[in-house]
Amino acid sequence: MFSFKRDNFYPINRNISSINIKEIISDLIIKDRCENIFFLSDVSTLDILRPKSLLFLNKSNFKLNLNNQIHVITDKDEYFDNPLFPNVTMVNNIDKAYNELINKMYFHSDSLIFKDEFLSINNSFISKFSFIENDVSIGNNCNIGMGVKIGKGSIIKNNVSISNSIIGENVIISENTTIGSSGFGFSLDSLGSNNIHPHIGIVNIKDNVRIGANCTIDRGKIDITLISENSMLDNHIHVAHNVHIGKNACIAAQCGISGSTKIGNNVIMGGQVGIAGHINIGNNVVIAAKSGVTKNIDDNSNVAGFPATDIKEWRLKIIKERRKKW
Amino acid sequence: MFSFKRDNFYPINRNISSINIKEIISDLIIKDRCENIFFLSDVSTLDILRPKSLLFLNKSNFKLNLNNQIHVITDKDEYFDNPLFPNVTMVNNIDKAYNELINKMYFHSDSLIFKDEFLSINNSFISKFSFIENDVSIGNNCNIGMGVKIGKGSIIKNNVSISNSIIGENVIISENTTIGSSGFGFSLDSLGSNNIHPHIGIVNIKDNVRIGANCTIDRGKIDITLISENSMLDNHIHVAHNVHIGKNACIAAQCGISGSTKIGNNVIMGGQVGIAGHINIGNNVVIAAKSGVTKNIDDNSNVAGFPATDIKEWRLKIIKERRKKW
Amino acid sequence: MFSFKRDNFYPINRNISSINIKEIISDLIIKDRCENIFFLSDVSTLDILRPKSLLFLNKSNFKLNLNNQIHVITDKDEYFDNPLFPNVTMVNNIDKAYNELINKMYFHSDSLIFKDEFLSINNSFISKFSFIENDVSIGNNCNIGMGVKIGKGSIIKNNVSISNSIIGENVIISENTTIGSSGFGFSLDSLGSNNIHPHIGIVNIKDNVRIGANCTIDRGKIDITLISENSMLDNHIHVAHNVHIGKNACIAAQCGISGSTKIGNNVIMGGQVGIAGHINIGNNVVIAAKSGVTKNIDDNSNVAGFPATDIKEWRLKIIKERRKKW
Repeated sequence: MFSFKRDNFYPINRNISSINIKEIISDLIIKDRCENIFFLSDVSTLDILRPKSLLFLNKSNFKLNLNNQIHVITDKDEYFDNPLFPNVTMVNNIDKAYNELINKMYFHSDSLIFKDEFLSINNSFISKFSFIENDVSIGNNCNIGMGVKIGKGSIIKNNVSISNSIIGENVIISENTTIGSSGFGFSLDSLGSNNIHPHIGIVNIKDNVRIGANCTIDRGKIDITLISENSMLDNHIHVAHNVHIGKNACIAAQCGISGSTKIGNNVIMGGQVGIAGHINIGNNVVIAAKSGVTKNIDDNSNVAGFPATDIKEWRLKIIKERRKKW
Repeated sequence: MFSFKRDNFYPINRNISSINIKEIISDLIIKDRCENIFFLSDVSTLDILRPKSLLFLNKSNFKLNLNNQIHVITDKDEYFDNPLFPNVTMVNNIDKAYNELINKMYFHSDSLIFKDEFLSINNSFISKFSFIENDVSIGNNCNIGMGVKIGKGSIIKNNVSISNSIIGENVIISENTTIGSSGFGFSLDSLGSNNIHPHIGIVNIKDNVRIGANCTIDRGKIDITLISENSMLDNHIHVAHNVHIGKNACIAAQCGISGSTKIGNNVIMGGQVGIAGHINIGNNVVIAAKSGVTKNIDDNSNVAGFPATDIKEWRLKIIKERRKKW
Repeated sequence: MFSFKRDNFYPINRNISSINIKEIISDLIIKDRCENIFFLSDVSTLDILRPKSLLFLNKSNFKLNLNNQIHVITDKDEYFDNPLFPNVTMVNNIDKAYNELINKMYFHSDSLIFKDEFLSINNSFISKFSFIENDVSIGNNCNIGMGVKIGKGSIIKNNVSISNSIIGENVIISENTTIGSSGFGFSLDSLGSNNIHPHIGIVNIKDNVRIGANCTIDRGKIDITLISENSMLDNHIHVAHNVHIGKNACIAAQCGISGSTKIGNNVIMGGQVGIAGHINIGNNVVIAAKSGVTKNIDDNSNVAGFPATDIKEWRLKIIKERRKKW
């Protein structure tokens, strides 16, 4: 899976080692074990294990063999007791532990102390720390943040804000769209802007993608939000954090895709579709306008309605309802 | 209830006294009575009665004891006849009277003659007449208008437009969002941009609120649109004029809340929910994604569907429908 | 029907004559006939036939008498065989032929080689090739592109992007709105940003229209997207390419109108309505909030639900459903 150099986007706030953890989240720790001492230079997820990293584990029933340079933070006894984990810290609140540790490790745009530096080029503000190919066309009043890469031949229209993103070649991003904003992730038991989970992932937009106007594509929490090759998005579309959209998607205006949902290749959505979070949509799926998709959808399905079902069933239901004398 | 100094946001166009009213809306007046003569320095609503103000009254069956420095404009005989109202003007078109009087009293951004003055600070335009705490972080290409206050520790991301708003501490407002735009208020019998009701209220966002990207929060017509402490709004959310949202709200992407609706504390909404205008949603209410709420909702309810009903009933209906052979 | 001077918006890339067509799309041509030789200076549609133009024809069963200065491109034998067409080229892929010919004829904003030139006036970027009346009020961080006309007394608020548009008098366009972006038009069998159909039409907004914040109004593909006099649009509204909206429309927030749909006068829509493409909505139609309109709607109808039906039937259905014991 695609990886990226996190500190291009999120400068290191403080280098912490496995033994600093104790001091930073001392109020949250129940017990800990630390067999290896190393500097933590990244954060892992179950999808991408990175060397010398923190890994926050709170799902149960997950089998895992870790190398010896991952430091696990968990609120589950079963993980603490796993003899294969050399370093593990058990906490009473894993969300708070995540917030406190990540905020200590990285600067990011949801904290006041994050700073970027911009040059004004052709009526837009371009970070000194971005990587824009020479022939990229950038409109007026845009903002391109630290670490952002934009590949050859891409066109960024007016009033677009791009941060924390790697964008391929020949991509078109239309007016007033926001790419790489922070995801809507927090714990329902501690609300408020101060308790937002720091989002230190990125958006990855592949070659030949077209994004419409006034869209929002939130960056991944730790890994990526992905829009794959040749996908076409209309206007006012919301793609939440950690979503993956396959190749050749056609998504009509005002659709919303909730966090962590994975969508296959060649998917077509009518307008105003809503898709729940943490589900899987197969390849070659067609989703009728205004559908609400609440469950996984198999390859080659054609669905409609809310909750979305097979479109033939949905049509039969509509026809029967019309025949009734209400 | 929260008040604010209106002329910080809407400079006085012309000082008018209770006797000037006759001349300004002479073509609309049926009859009038003017026992006290005073300069009108504000506008009241039934929620907030302000000294030396105009009050536009067109609801019937409303009991009211006014002090003697409120001048009532009405199209209802029962109000004209109320002996407790010292000053009252009866008109044949209360919407036109509102438009003509308010446009005469105040400058506002829906009229050509409104002018603000901006300094360019850190790549954004900040009104000389705004009040921004020193440590507020403001992104590129923003616009902060006359009278706007932003409290300590708040973060305004790129391409945000804020006007007519008082914003608390530690608030985060994300990219391409519009705060304080004019509400969608007019009379269906006289359409067109010239006939929009002047909106001379503000938006009040309390401490620790988080607003996502590409949202719109319209200002109140005369009083405020309110987002209370610790509330979290995702992207593409529309909050119409005069809406009040309580504390600790969690509102997922693409929800729309129509004008003058009041929402309690601790309310959770899934994505793409629509809420009708002029209704009340209680405390601790959960509204499933894609619901359409058309009526008041009691405290502690859990609703779904359109029109929204108890979520258990909605689920039973879905299950039964699936069992049928259509 | 309203016309416009195309090269005000889309500068000529290369003058092509009817005989150049052969060379530009040589790989796509099956057969051709060329009785008249002339320079092609425009593009026609079945709605507006323009002199010395290309006309792409792929609908069957269409009767047409063309003057002798229209060059037809078609993939249908029946058009090729029409003896009244002096110039006609038959191709195996009409979408590719469109893309290749139009991209050769015109510069437009979906190609890298399009350039506009801007002056920075009052904190916004205004094309040297735009036509803005003196008393127009333009906010900060706006972008007004080549060819755009804005009539007297109009107010453009902050962070608005307007391109490829003719805007009447006393129009209000609110913050973060995008007018004149390219439409979501392409062929499902060749996706990707390189295969977008060039959109070389415009948006035409008539006098006294009010457009809310964070809206998108896409320009026509060849002709216009139209918003007629006195129409009022709330926030987050999407109007797709080639849509025509009649006079005195009231459209509440978050509605989406799909491509090429025509809407009569005096139409009212509640919030979050979706309207399918290529349909006709009559005059004086009322569409309840959250409706999904999939078919033509007659004058004076009042509809609700999805698929939208007569609102009385819809209400009866809701009432009956509630009475059932699920």
